[in-house]
Amino acid sequence: MNVAGLAFGDWMKHIQSTMEEALSALLPAAADVPERLHDAMRYAVLDGGKRVRPLLVFAAGDLFDADADLLARAAAAVEMIHAYSLVHDDMPCMDDDALRRGKPTVHVKYDEATALLVGDALQSQAFIVLSEGAVEAGADTQRRLAMFRLLARASGSAGMCGGQAIDLASVGKALSLADLEHMHQLKTGALLHASVLLGALAGKSLTQEENAALDAYAAATGLAFQVVDDVLDATADSVTLGKTAGKDAADNKPTYVSILGLEESRTLAETLRNDAHRALEPFGEKARRLREIADLIVQRKA
Amino acid sequence: MNVAGLAFGDWMKHIQSTMEEALSALLPAAADVPERLHDAMRYAVLDGGKRVRPLLVFAAGDLFDADADLLARAAAAVEMIHAYSLVHDDMPCMDDDALRRGKPTVHVKYDEATALLVGDALQSQAFIVLSEGAVEAGADTQRRLAMFRLLARASGSAGMCGGQAIDLASVGKALSLADLEHMHQLKTGALLHASVLLGALAGKSLTQEENAALDAYAAATGLAFQVVDDVLDATADSVTLGKTAGKDAADNKPTYVSILGLEESRTLAETLRNDAHRALEPFGEKARRLREIADLIVQRKA
Repeated sequence: MNVAGLAFGDWMKHIQSTMEEALSALLPAAADVPERLHDAMRYAVLDGGKRVRPLLVFAAGDLFDADADLLARAAAAVEMIHAYSLVHDDMPCMDDDALRRGKPTVHVKYDEATALLVGDALQSQAFIVLSEGAVEAGADTQRRLAMFRLLARASGSAGMCGGQAIDLASVGKALSLADLEHMHQLKTGALLHASVLLGALAGKSLTQEENAALDAYAAATGLAFQVVDDVLDATADSVTLGKTAGKDAADNKPTYVSILGLEESRTLAETLRNDAHRALEPFGEKARRLREIADLIVQRKA
Repeated sequence: MNVAGLAFGDWMKHIQSTMEEALSALLPAAADVPERLHDAMRYAVLDGGKRVRPLLVFAAGDLFDADADLLARAAAAVEMIHAYSLVHDDMPCMDDDALRRGKPTVHVKYDEATALLVGDALQSQAFIVLSEGAVEAGADTQRRLAMFRLLARASGSAGMCGGQAIDLASVGKALSLADLEHMHQLKTGALLHASVLLGALAGKSLTQEENAALDAYAAATGLAFQVVDDVLDATADSVTLGKTAGKDAADNKPTYVSILGLEESRTLAETLRNDAHRALEPFGEKARRLREIADLIVQRKA
């Protein structure tokens, strides 16, 4: 198939189905002991979400014609980290959410202890997938180790987990715009940033200029993603979102809408989309998919 | 200091204090945002435990004169994985334990959401520590990636998390001795095995024979560790153990004592110790610390 020739919508569908296959192959089989844990891990990851992070990995992979197998492994690893964070966030001691992607959350469908273990095992699985790919691919192992380090840092207390902790501490507080941005840079931005860099690193080691340009793209896109999330949380209904709408407001969590208002939030999202496009200029036509993803993130309705 | 010349007790104290320094240096500072998460991560890891896994890493490192910095990183990574599993096991949805190593468990001292994030972030931190060490050490990166893969597999659903899941499913069931062994091979054995192999791999790539000998040592030692744990749970008091004694029986969990009885369990531990010693014969005097650790594990009183 001429993937480069596909319209964005078709390219997205192609990557999404590629990812579904890759994730299914890279997750433990439900028939393997312990069956219940493996079944729940697959439930948490498969058949869900827009796969925004994998789309970013593959789009960034286009920049330097990265190896398809390594891209699939990197994308699967990032998606497993994302999926584990959703399973743990939904637990009663965190957001206590019963609905995710239109389906019962893991602790509701299975039980709390299983949800805890599913998240833990999915994080391990992400690193298993990346380490196995790293060795099998056999190419520049220094670059593979850099990918490993990147994903671990994006997941940990200076990344996603740290953002969760700041989010927890912020409930009921009046956050400044700067604090809110910092929280989201860690909570969602770190993993989106890692997705872009992992895709690029799967192709080659990066120059400082390439790194800086991709950092700028990831920062703008990641922030836009969150701003639009807040707008949708305030305007769309649960069925459209596939999760409980209006929850942040109900939980008295600070959002861009609560701080900037709806219109200014929409304007900010547009500005960030332009920033993202500008950051990609050095890459020319090779950055087409990354540009299209920035558009998708700002224009999505769910 | 002539570490090789130290009596075992002094060597153990030396490694334990070396580890305390290494762990403190390799954990995020409590002053860094998010402070509460970092403070809780340090509380969960520092000043606790016998550091059996780090002892195994360093003891195995003696076999092939491994680099001390890489050994410390590998040992810290394994200990962080172990510490995260304790934090999550103690949570109300799992074992609901209030006491650990003689101190309040993390969810009791902080809160459940923080305990969840502490475990998640400690798992990431383990891989950060190993990936940074891998690159800084600069030596054979293929071997470093093998270490990475080993730790990830030992932590995941085919290792520690899988053992937890089997353990959960076994509560109130009459397990066969074979099922009980399989559960412990995953729940505690996988990480003890990884400790031995990580220490050896920090020195050099292993031949099939070396690998097989260390597998046999780790299997016997890991099983002995669990058998003695069950004996102590049935015979020692909470103060001595630093955790709630008699809990397994109270939870109606199958143990070696409940299946074999006390005396036969003690005999089994002795047999396993001899198996461990026999497996080490090919390594001669270089395996002295590994032999001494097998003795410690069987003779410990807590």
